[in-house]
Amino acid sequence: MTKFMDVHHGMQGITGDQLAAAHRADQAIERAEGVRFERAWADPKSGTVYCLSEAPSAEAVKRVHERAGHPADEIHQVPLEVS
Amino acid sequence: MTKFMDVHHGMQGITGDQLAAAHRADQAIERAEGVRFERAWADPKSGTVYCLSEAPSAEAVKRVHERAGHPADEIHQVPLEVS
Repeated sequence: MTKFMDVHHGMQGITGDQLAAAHRADQAIERAEGVRFERAWADPKSGTVYCLSEAPSAEAVKRVHERAGHPADEIHQVPLEVS
Repeated sequence: MTKFMDVHHGMQGITGDQLAAAHRADQAIERAEGVRFERAWADPKSGTVYCLSEAPSAEAVKRVHERAGHPADEIHQVPLEVS
């Protein structure tokens, strides 16, 4: 399991409710792929959404987002993390 | 104070030590701008680094990263967040 950061573009005007609904839709089906979506952040102005997950592969993250109806534009494995 | 996600490109091959040193360099000077860098993630393969911060403005984030010697390529305010 590694961390992944995926990015969605073109989400201008996204609301807090829409972000929460999309996140719940991912979490409802993530188990089948062994993925755990942790957090998501959105910039309604530029239309960018970032999702942080723990997953067995980028493909698993891709499949969950696709099945939930909001395919990711970029998926980056982020093996390095600091806080 | 709002959350910001900033992105650095061209960081191919970045190591855990380099990410930690860059993060510490930001944290050492962030107070002067009222910024708090929370976490950072790196993908050494694509050379992408994501930094999550809480700050009074994008300009404040920009100045801290510039003074620490690693200007950000993108800075997005992310007022929406879910977990």
